[in-house]
Amino acid sequence: MTQHTILLIQAQPGRRDTRGWEDHNTLSLAVEAIIAKYEQRLKQLNPSVRNIHYDISDLQKYIDTFGDICCLILDPTTQSYIPHDREWFKQKVFNHLMKNLKYKSPEAQSAASYSTLYPCKSLRRDLDSMEATDQQALLYDKLVQTSIEHHDYENAIFLAERFVACYPQNPRATYLHAKAYFHSNRHHVAYRILEGQNYLLSKYLFARCCIDLDELQEGEQALRYILQTIDSSGSTIGELELEHVYCLLGKICRRAGKKGEAIKAFKKALELCPFLWNAHQNLCELGSSPEAGDTFQARSSGRALPSQPHKSATRRKRLRDGASKSSGRETTEVVKVEEGRKTNENGGDGDLLAGDEVIEDLRGCGQAYSTLCRYECRETLKILSGLGEVHLRTGWALTQVARSYYEMAKYPEAARFFREARELEPWRAEGLDLFGSCLWHLKEEAELAYLAKEMESTDRLAPQTWCIVGNLYRWENLNLKEHEMAIKCFGRAIQLNPYFQYAYTLTGFEYKMKEDYDRAVTFFQKAIRIDPRPFNAWFGLGEIYYQQQNYKASQFHYEKALSINPKNPIIHFHLGTIMQKLGQDKALGCFETAVALEPKNALYRFRLAYSLALSKRYEDALRQLNPLETFTHIESNVYLLMGKIYKELGDNKHALLAYSKARDHRSARHDLINEALDNLYSLGDDTDLSDLFKHLD
Amino acid sequence: MTQHTILLIQAQPGRRDTRGWEDHNTLSLAVEAIIAKYEQRLKQLNPSVRNIHYDISDLQKYIDTFGDICCLILDPTTQSYIPHDREWFKQKVFNHLMKNLKYKSPEAQSAASYSTLYPCKSLRRDLDSMEATDQQALLYDKLVQTSIEHHDYENAIFLAERFVACYPQNPRATYLHAKAYFHSNRHHVAYRILEGQNYLLSKYLFARCCIDLDELQEGEQALRYILQTIDSSGSTIGELELEHVYCLLGKICRRAGKKGEAIKAFKKALELCPFLWNAHQNLCELGSSPEAGDTFQARSSGRALPSQPHKSATRRKRLRDGASKSSGRETTEVVKVEEGRKTNENGGDGDLLAGDEVIEDLRGCGQAYSTLCRYECRETLKILSGLGEVHLRTGWALTQVARSYYEMAKYPEAARFFREARELEPWRAEGLDLFGSCLWHLKEEAELAYLAKEMESTDRLAPQTWCIVGNLYRWENLNLKEHEMAIKCFGRAIQLNPYFQYAYTLTGFEYKMKEDYDRAVTFFQKAIRIDPRPFNAWFGLGEIYYQQQNYKASQFHYEKALSINPKNPIIHFHLGTIMQKLGQDKALGCFETAVALEPKNALYRFRLAYSLALSKRYEDALRQLNPLETFTHIESNVYLLMGKIYKELGDNKHALLAYSKARDHRSARHDLINEALDNLYSLGDDTDLSDLFKHLD
Repeated sequence: MTQHTILLIQAQPGRRDTRGWEDHNTLSLAVEAIIAKYEQRLKQLNPSVRNIHYDISDLQKYIDTFGDICCLILDPTTQSYIPHDREWFKQKVFNHLMKNLKYKSPEAQSAASYSTLYPCKSLRRDLDSMEATDQQALLYDKLVQTSIEHHDYENAIFLAERFVACYPQNPRATYLHAKAYFHSNRHHVAYRILEGQNYLLSKYLFARCCIDLDELQEGEQALRYILQTIDSSGSTIGELELEHVYCLLGKICRRAGKKGEAIKAFKKALELCPFLWNAHQNLCELGSSPEAGDTFQARSSGRALPSQPHKSATRRKRLRDGASKSSGRETTEVVKVEEGRKTNENGGDGDLLAGDEVIEDLRGCGQAYSTLCRYECRETLKILSGLGEVHLRTGWALTQVARSYYEMAKYPEAARFFREARELEPWRAEGLDLFGSCLWHLKEEAELAYLAKEMESTDRLAPQTWCIVGNLYRWENLNLKEHEMAIKCFGRAIQLNPYFQYAYTLTGFEYKMKEDYDRAVTFFQKAIRIDPRPFNAWFGLGEIYYQQQNYKASQFHYEKALSINPKNPIIHFHLGTIMQKLGQDKALGCFETAVALEPKNALYRFRLAYSLALSKRYEDALRQLNPLETFTHIESNVYLLMGKIYKELGDNKHALLAYSKARDHRSARHDLINEALDNLYSLGDDTDLSDLFKHLD
Repeated sequence: MTQHTILLIQAQPGRRDTRGWEDHNTLSLAVEAIIAKYEQRLKQLNPSVRNIHYDISDLQKYIDTFGDICCLILDPTTQSYIPHDREWFKQKVFNHLMKNLKYKSPEAQSAASYSTLYPCKSLRRDLDSMEATDQQALLYDKLVQTSIEHHDYENAIFLAERFVACYPQNPRATYLHAKAYFHSNRHHVAYRILEGQNYLLSKYLFARCCIDLDELQEGEQALRYILQTIDSSGSTIGELELEHVYCLLGKICRRAGKKGEAIKAFKKALELCPFLWNAHQNLCELGSSPEAGDTFQARSSGRALPSQPHKSATRRKRLRDGASKSSGRETTEVVKVEEGRKTNENGGDGDLLAGDEVIEDLRGCGQAYSTLCRYECRETLKILSGLGEVHLRTGWALTQVARSYYEMAKYPEAARFFREARELEPWRAEGLDLFGSCLWHLKEEAELAYLAKEMESTDRLAPQTWCIVGNLYRWENLNLKEHEMAIKCFGRAIQLNPYFQYAYTLTGFEYKMKEDYDRAVTFFQKAIRIDPRPFNAWFGLGEIYYQQQNYKASQFHYEKALSINPKNPIIHFHLGTIMQKLGQDKALGCFETAVALEPKNALYRFRLAYSLALSKRYEDALRQLNPLETFTHIESNVYLLMGKIYKELGDNKHALLAYSKARDHRSARHDLINEALDNLYSLGDDTDLSDLFKHLD
């Protein structure tokens, strides 16, 4: 281990011309060089004295006279130099002298002997242990770290065990021992090793293990301990970045259901480091709807790579569009270089620019994710398309596009983008659960089966895989056994990740299909407990209560779903149906919204027309019904309702036409239609509108 | 990002007094300072010229005149300084000038304008991308690394995706992307991302993924590519340590069954770095029986922390015993300090000492492991007890002690040390499979069940757990279903780790007990294919062929087992039995060895006596039989044989006594004994010795 040491010295304060440097092969030699320099000086000052005695404190005072001194020591593992300040160096000088106090060679003693104020014996013991820590422990430390860095965890564990055996009190030894186990994927071992350790890095790793082992309270305690220690001592924590402590705290709090504290912690993390995407993502999912613009804004202060608020609109524009338009490159580059220059003149440097660019990248993604979590899907699509080709053509962005379409129930578009994402990054499991459901909605049985097969062979440990496989058993008209198979698959997903919300929701829907409503309710409630944001568990509960004819409860859950995802036409439609049943006037409004959101849905339009007809707004009802004639899938019901309305309006000619058309359609309601036809010209037409469409309720 | 930069300059070659240093907040400022210095100098040299033009190459020549120049740049994540040499700095100066070529402010232009030999346009493009790499990419790089370091892999993956999106050609981006996936335990994703990457770190990680995914050929290719690249370019590989490349290559070759190449790679790895325990361990397991003394010796040269060959015997002794005797501490510490001093005077330093101490620690462990792999169990125990309390009182060492006893079939002692190891390091799964078998041999049903329960609840993913659970179903006289359960458990262990040899062997024994010999043979052969060193699969095959009365084949396999583990009495005993059956004279020798190895085993001694009696060495036989009387578990057979021998010797009095004692014992062979008694004084005693003990064959 070469411990190459560089000493930077400015001999006199305020005089840069007295700056000099020297390098030595080891720290000891550097220390000795300084001592030699001092002894030289002493001799110069006392040319007549043969044996010069001096105190360690004299030497330390000598070092204090330097204008500046900095000691850089090579770390061979990173091939970089670690700087140490004056006080550190003085300590090393002191240690060196104390250690050699008794064993200095006679020649050296003739040159100078030391006297000291400190009791020797007790000190030497400390020094010995320190020396050992400095050397052997350091070596072990590095060997273990190198092994971990090279993913040779067996080696790391063995060497760490030796390290711990030699230095049972050394917190680094225990930390590295646990870290090696952590990386070899045995988190419970790391957890046990780290229990009760107070070293801050150990505390952090312990908390990290806790979240995996679901020991949330202990994990939170460990992180709070770190934060308190730093608060009270005001010290820095070396390798440990505070923002990650807060981010982990947030995750633990979120999992423990402490939403408020989780949000606080994530916000604190983002304050410390604006690049912590994960914290932003969690905030979005917690519904704390941070404005991505706020989160990922250029910051003018703070330790985490500040950036400047003076950016011109031109540059912003360039970052958004630039990459997608190669023709516009040349001019924008000029802008960039000019700005780079400007920044330099302002005393900043290129890093600020880099920080800004990264922040800019993250802002777009952050805004998109934030709006998507609020189910503002159109807005999400707009933001994503503004990301520029560079970021848009990635698995993440395409998945978000697909999700947006999916949430808008636009399954063909969603499937298209899911496919594109999968082609680009075939390994991406995130979001594929929705792709599976999307294919299921589209009844693309073959593609779904193929996807399931592929996922099963490559990614058996991803919960998404089992959601997809489960979908295979969800085709309609299947027997009981296949329901059980689907539930088993979703159960496997839950086993793989007990916090995988969507698997609970799917299980709920499956039990609902089996008409096992109690179990279905349980699973929907579990899903909501894990994460109340996704609307579909609320929606599922609404459906169940509707089927149990508990309309009030159903309305409550539909409204809850709607408050989460106000732009989903299906929820509006279902809510409208219930309201109509409960005789509420707002039903009409619900149908209107559903039609507005999805104008091409025949069912919504028909229900709106029926609702309008019930309110005796016959002309409006006809306006809704007329365009339906151009739809391909059209039911006799439409003509039946039309006929009825024309009849009400007294337009028997059109009514006759409509009824005839209704009769031309295959329908199970032939008798009704015939009856309506029979009654058309008679006075005894007493079939009420709501009686005619009783089946709709 | 503050990029604090320190410039170390020695103005004139060979003159240390011209050394000076300066520090700047950014690299750009440092570069500009050097440019300013040059321009200053130009002005001094040409006081009359108003507009000075100079070429970039002039400036570079100026930098070449320095005696030395080194540029240290602060890495904010590690808070250490990365050193760069003259050429690097010249490149930076060049970049800086090229970048500002067109956009220099008018004032600056008045001071100096540049001309250049290079075509501007094409270069500026390169510079732009390089500048971006320097800044934004560097930032991304650090952000991803910090996230990985803090185990926030979600964040790391997302940021790495952004990094790759911005810099699809940057090998670091792809590498970090894969690394984040690797750490989040999705090795197949890392594998797919890294396919075809040529960046050396990527190649290494790819190979690491390959071994997990069993793509051994691809893995080997990747590592060979690294080695060739380094060979041909002679370049260093930065973060990647060559010894780890060799070590991984060894593991891949071993798994692929290329024993010779594996040994070569491991040896090379140890040559490069003597601290690579894992390489040594693999060599031992491959039966290449390296002398640990050779492997872990102090080296006087080489890059990997050399140590010196001049160590005194005193010091070696201290290292072995010192730690165990706290009373002897003080004196040995003096020795240490004295030696430390001596080393310093020799121009070395404390690091050498540290390296030696670590090597010394490893040497003991290495020797123990090496002898244990050769089944020299007594030797192993001797070496381990010499390790000193510090290393002996660790889970690893205690497990090796227990294994040594286990391999000598000393199960109570083995169990004692297994228990001790488990108490000390309850998380250690390694070796517990043998603990399970040990408890099974001891018929400690309750303890085995408890151990199985504990392991099942804490370490379901360890193959050892399922070997232990399987043992629960292996009690004798069990029905078929329980055999199946045991086999299922062992199968689970194999599923968890398809290279877990012991599980195959156990499955083999289980099929043997079920008398499904074909399957048993298959599993024993699989075990041997994975690792031919453990003798028990060979032994199991010997047993099967014996039961199939294929004595030649049985003898072959027993002899193979014996060649691996020559000190195991059971193998000698079984081999003796076969040889006796085949009428080979060496049978007697086998029994003698078995008795010598385990003098307290009544069965071995009885068989030896019987064998001696068959050779008509009656006196020798009696010498073996007599001590058996003091044993607690003694069979009527012993007295029967004794009686027979006394009869042959004509000592009817003792024969009568022996037969009577035989009759006092409960035995299924009462008729035989009575017959012998009846015949004692008659002349018609024609029962042959071998007929009497026919059941033994």
